[in-house]
Amino acid sequence: MAIEPFDVVDLIRTKRDKGVLDTAQINWLIDAYTSGYVADEQMSAMTMAIFLNGMQRDEIRDLTLAMIASGETMSFESLSKRTTDKHSTGGVGDKITLPLAPLVASFGVAVPQLSGRGLGHTGGTLDKLESIPGWRASISNEEFYQQLEDVGAVICAAGSGLAPADGKLYSLRDITGTVECIPLIASSIMSKKIAEGTAALVLDVKFGSGAFLQDPARGRELAETMVQLGKDAGVDTVALLTNMNVPLGNAIGNANEVRESVEVLAGGGPADVVELTIALAREMLELAGVHDADVAGALKNGQAMDTWNAMIRAQGGDPSAALPVAKETHVVTATRSGILVEQQALPFGIAAWRLGAGRARKQDPVQHSAGIDLHAKPGDTVTEGQPLFTLSADEPERFARALEALEGAYAIGDEAPELAPLIAGRIS
Amino acid sequence: MAIEPFDVVDLIRTKRDKGVLDTAQINWLIDAYTSGYVADEQMSAMTMAIFLNGMQRDEIRDLTLAMIASGETMSFESLSKRTTDKHSTGGVGDKITLPLAPLVASFGVAVPQLSGRGLGHTGGTLDKLESIPGWRASISNEEFYQQLEDVGAVICAAGSGLAPADGKLYSLRDITGTVECIPLIASSIMSKKIAEGTAALVLDVKFGSGAFLQDPARGRELAETMVQLGKDAGVDTVALLTNMNVPLGNAIGNANEVRESVEVLAGGGPADVVELTIALAREMLELAGVHDADVAGALKNGQAMDTWNAMIRAQGGDPSAALPVAKETHVVTATRSGILVEQQALPFGIAAWRLGAGRARKQDPVQHSAGIDLHAKPGDTVTEGQPLFTLSADEPERFARALEALEGAYAIGDEAPELAPLIAGRIS
Repeated sequence: MAIEPFDVVDLIRTKRDKGVLDTAQINWLIDAYTSGYVADEQMSAMTMAIFLNGMQRDEIRDLTLAMIASGETMSFESLSKRTTDKHSTGGVGDKITLPLAPLVASFGVAVPQLSGRGLGHTGGTLDKLESIPGWRASISNEEFYQQLEDVGAVICAAGSGLAPADGKLYSLRDITGTVECIPLIASSIMSKKIAEGTAALVLDVKFGSGAFLQDPARGRELAETMVQLGKDAGVDTVALLTNMNVPLGNAIGNANEVRESVEVLAGGGPADVVELTIALAREMLELAGVHDADVAGALKNGQAMDTWNAMIRAQGGDPSAALPVAKETHVVTATRSGILVEQQALPFGIAAWRLGAGRARKQDPVQHSAGIDLHAKPGDTVTEGQPLFTLSADEPERFARALEALEGAYAIGDEAPELAPLIAGRIS
Repeated sequence: MAIEPFDVVDLIRTKRDKGVLDTAQINWLIDAYTSGYVADEQMSAMTMAIFLNGMQRDEIRDLTLAMIASGETMSFESLSKRTTDKHSTGGVGDKITLPLAPLVASFGVAVPQLSGRGLGHTGGTLDKLESIPGWRASISNEEFYQQLEDVGAVICAAGSGLAPADGKLYSLRDITGTVECIPLIASSIMSKKIAEGTAALVLDVKFGSGAFLQDPARGRELAETMVQLGKDAGVDTVALLTNMNVPLGNAIGNANEVRESVEVLAGGGPADVVELTIALAREMLELAGVHDADVAGALKNGQAMDTWNAMIRAQGGDPSAALPVAKETHVVTATRSGILVEQQALPFGIAAWRLGAGRARKQDPVQHSAGIDLHAKPGDTVTEGQPLFTLSADEPERFARALEALEGAYAIGDEAPELAPLIAGRIS
């Protein structure tokens, strides 16, 4: 057995005692963890120490680079188009990737979206698209590059070859209470994105009750950390800081989120989804060198929809096929007249998850037709007996636990609430 | 599968966010960890959170009781004698159990010493006694109680049935950098001792460079925590706070520590070993209701030695047999004349370990003849060329790395050093 240059217990103690790990130590740690020489129980003690004692900028950069080096990297240099990528830290009702990728690609740039599946109360983009009959998330490398050339937009499953250390570490953090940690979130996201080889990246960093980080100041810190990591790695990076206290749009689930995305691509859809889609599209196009694009027009005139249809067809899906509908629905109505003053993202996310839209364990399937449709948003006037939202599920016994999650999650008052802006800041 | 009353990730988050776990939560956690439902990587995240955020008194008590409840408990109520027990938190050259147990037992009380093996730089009592030809650490329950009746003193291996959760947790802490943590040390020691069922317990809590805890204030905190845990469980508990900045006695190893212990039992031996043996013996006897015993006399007149001989013979050992001697020795001499002003416990412990006296992994054997004999102690006048200490090992190639550990670990000066008292405090 080769003599190891470091002792993992010494490295854990260093971080535990608020010390700083150097480049060689972090490289060794990630390499030894990827190979299995450092055990899960040692890495989880390390991540808890990082959670509680933090990491300096240099350590976060080293961790990101070490995770990239743990696997393969991709390159888009052979493409005839410029690439521009987007990542959202995830939230309730966040289907923005669906209308955004074809919208941006419709301006002649390449939008590679290597996406994940949902775990817990935030949905996964692939789960949503799999509601479309025939659509498949896994495509070959060849198909991937060809689709970027032909259609421009690809939303597909990330191969396990990119930053495998991140995959392993993320699974570990998920079961050890170390998810909501800026150095670990930032290095996780950025290692995957840098390994993908995009030249430009727009981040949608969410804060609020339905996001990883509740506090806007911590959301900003995460955004700044990731923008810096992108710059250090030569990736043009911009972040929007967006509010996730209220669900995004009216649909929370899978098939219903696809339905809402198609409405946006048809020039309609909820105002907040349209606003965020347009803002992110402008950022992505600017970074790709397409200035002053008529993004709103492309949603109205069918340009973005054409790319959507081509994108879905290229992966075996039928964009005109009927989407699945749940067997059972349960409508919740207003118990009084007034103004909807509260609609909390987290409980609505949990309720949709309990209805079957999400999964508790990785191996579980999702129910594509399960979810929640909101009929009123904060600030809307409602009258007694009017439907506030509809729960959908295949098994009616799921309604009780979903309703339990929603207790106290929405309220009707008399005075119009102060509505926070959706986009709270921009970091570049 | 039964529905679990708690989610381990929620409990980890509670501790991570400086919250308090209640009795039901701690009982469930330890039970679920013992059964394997809670995984090692989850428990290590929890222990790191405990290490960094601490535990309140009630939590430490609950943790101790939960670990006791994870296994069997013993009882000495059927014995015709009163029992009194001792535990040391461990240090370099700490062989005190060897002369102490027979000394105390020679006054007609029962001294059950369920001991461990060494790991890292602190030696294990069982490893030391195994230098004696024929002596065996494992005895049956029946032999154990019979020997307590007949001889009074038993030093043997603890069965795995006592507080198995502690055994599992200690192994985990050892490889995840979470050893030096007062709530975890206190509950670990006291769960084993309370499960053993002793009525009285004297703790030797060490502080300084050769101890778990360097800082005397933290040593005192550990001592107070353990005394409180003992009282809560109805065990009469007293702690001495003792200095472990300098090795205890002149022998560090296994066979040489037995040799030094026999010297003490013969009325001789180094002053510090004698002082601590007598102080601890007085405390143990007082708790057992034997007041004003002539402890020093029992070392001089052969009374304690008779019990030692009977104790060794009862476990198959030959107390008159020659102890093993190393194949190679290396003498380090004074490079100048003066006064020995420094002799640091930790590097001497590490050096003895590197010579083969200790083990790096649990399954490794120890070399009974390996170790260090000190020929001068701090405050002693030395002349150039005089032997300062002798290293012993079976393989001469071990000397280089042992000497490396000793660089800067001792010093000769011109002025007499201020010598700290061995016994720094008493907590009852």
